[in-house]
Amino acid sequence: MTTMSGEAPAGLTDRQDELEAALKALVSERPLPLYRMMGYHMGWVETTGEPRISSPPLRVHGALALLACHTLGGNYSNALPHATAAEYLYNHVLIHDDIRDGNSERDGRASVWWSWGPAQAINTGDGMHALARLSLFEARNNGVSAESVADAIRVLDEANLDTCEGQYRDITLQERLDVSVDEYLSMAESQTGALLSGAVRLGALAGGQADEGVLKGLDEFGRKLGAAMRVADDCDVFWPDGQRDEARQGRLVAKKKTLPVAHVIELGSPTDRRKVGEIYMERVIDPSAADSLVEVLDAAGSKEFSASAISRLLHESVSALESAKVPQDAIDSLSEAAMYLATPSGTVSVPATAREDA
Amino acid sequence: MTTMSGEAPAGLTDRQDELEAALKALVSERPLPLYRMMGYHMGWVETTGEPRISSPPLRVHGALALLACHTLGGNYSNALPHATAAEYLYNHVLIHDDIRDGNSERDGRASVWWSWGPAQAINTGDGMHALARLSLFEARNNGVSAESVADAIRVLDEANLDTCEGQYRDITLQERLDVSVDEYLSMAESQTGALLSGAVRLGALAGGQADEGVLKGLDEFGRKLGAAMRVADDCDVFWPDGQRDEARQGRLVAKKKTLPVAHVIELGSPTDRRKVGEIYMERVIDPSAADSLVEVLDAAGSKEFSASAISRLLHESVSALESAKVPQDAIDSLSEAAMYLATPSGTVSVPATAREDA
Repeated sequence: MTTMSGEAPAGLTDRQDELEAALKALVSERPLPLYRMMGYHMGWVETTGEPRISSPPLRVHGALALLACHTLGGNYSNALPHATAAEYLYNHVLIHDDIRDGNSERDGRASVWWSWGPAQAINTGDGMHALARLSLFEARNNGVSAESVADAIRVLDEANLDTCEGQYRDITLQERLDVSVDEYLSMAESQTGALLSGAVRLGALAGGQADEGVLKGLDEFGRKLGAAMRVADDCDVFWPDGQRDEARQGRLVAKKKTLPVAHVIELGSPTDRRKVGEIYMERVIDPSAADSLVEVLDAAGSKEFSASAISRLLHESVSALESAKVPQDAIDSLSEAAMYLATPSGTVSVPATAREDA
Repeated sequence: MTTMSGEAPAGLTDRQDELEAALKALVSERPLPLYRMMGYHMGWVETTGEPRISSPPLRVHGALALLACHTLGGNYSNALPHATAAEYLYNHVLIHDDIRDGNSERDGRASVWWSWGPAQAINTGDGMHALARLSLFEARNNGVSAESVADAIRVLDEANLDTCEGQYRDITLQERLDVSVDEYLSMAESQTGALLSGAVRLGALAGGQADEGVLKGLDEFGRKLGAAMRVADDCDVFWPDGQRDEARQGRLVAKKKTLPVAHVIELGSPTDRRKVGEIYMERVIDPSAADSLVEVLDAAGSKEFSASAISRLLHESVSALESAKVPQDAIDSLSEAAMYLATPSGTVSVPATAREDA
């Protein structure tokens, strides 16, 4: 996710230092270079193991877990092990994603597989997957009940399996052009939304929330938010602020499915569909073809369609919380966070009216 | 592990049908083709999804979990969820191993990545990793306590992280020739032994075993058994029964580290070391170079050295159980299983005296 711009709401940033310290604690005392690769991925060290001076990115999954715990009546610190677990699970997915998609860069630095090769990167991701749960086991030593730990791990694994189902569908869609809008959004809800849903539900569990209805509402919130963030990211691929950066260029070249393209394919005129088809028939999409593609999307109204989709998904994410009778304070904080996270950083603006709705 | 030959002891095979049914139950009702790839890897279906008629391989990790539960006083069926978890965790490692090592085949069939590409295979392995725990969550619905489930998951994840550490070292050793015997065995104890240790400990936990000393003894048993099985497999690479099969040829070509080679490098004469060095300097080891290598190993006594190493490791595995005061019945069953699992299928025979010791 690279859509965020502007100032993040305090609800997301308030405890980032504590979260960062908890994340670091889990790998910093392990001497094997396996953990140095993990630390590199997290942004704490250089490939040589030298400390790296830079401010960490917003840890979205961890932050949402902390926020959900806090706004649902728990103490921030209760959710630190859960936030750590969610964040490491997400980062395990990123490490494997970069291999799958052949991304040479991650956040402006060489990706793990690019630096150490695919064999080490597959293994580093697997190690991080195992590591994700260690913080929860440690919480148990600190008085968290076995019930609570087992519940949290179940949420974590089910979210993870759901993510893998989404990944499966994403890879399958990549080979096809006739991908409908609904098919795309349903894939995005799993691939991107499942872990966000897992993060907020973990936070809620840490805060002592056991109401099935509330947990179901949070699940829906996370899934719709995931789809909205994904569409926002798609918008930044086609309509960036200034030059398209390497990561976004890479997504274009790899022909990853996006909502604007799904829109033209499903709802565009026969001429527009043919034009998009011709561009996607080429082995790679070079910069000039990318410009032609954006022209077709502009003419077909895909930009406005995508902006409305974000607006609608954000609206649905908040409605899910309202239907589940989540306390209003929590709705306010979570919807403020969602709006920030799903706002494109490029030139697409999400309709104001619908955003006010949300 | 492809070292097993001859009749497996009843302790390992007694409940394989039930185990196989429990393994199948976890994926068979899930319609997404992601689970078909898992079923293909497990040997139940063809790439098309058509059922495959063949007897399943011995599920070593699951069988050891069931055996440990039973011989330590529990009921077989209590350990089915644990056996399933251990077996799926192991198979997740295999799916990723085949990508890492570029294995085109697994048990005489195309590997998952060879059939569906590395992107789907990384994801299928990740999905199986998440799936490994689902059987434990279901056990909780059937009356297993949250404490017991949380304990089991902790054993599973710690074993998994230990395996990843072993993998890391295995990949690193692959680039080096100056690998000592101890360094090799310590890597094998993690990479191969950690999951076997996890499997027997999971079984013991399922059987209600909570004695820390016994669990520690089982841990040591599993780790030494893993190293012994690894060396037995190495022996079959160099001294197979008949023609070297494709998988073993592949391990030679990939220059995976083996105990016989570590033996020559550490303890061989300067001439032998130079010969091995020259063979390993080549980009690939072709069949004629493989023959020369075996000649050097034969002359250096690496075959006998490796056979003694298996014998010693088996002895240590059983001593660990004795020191931990594991009941004699359990020691007898586990050591019988260990001897079967670590017997090379090729022409290397493990010294009889030491085997009797064990």
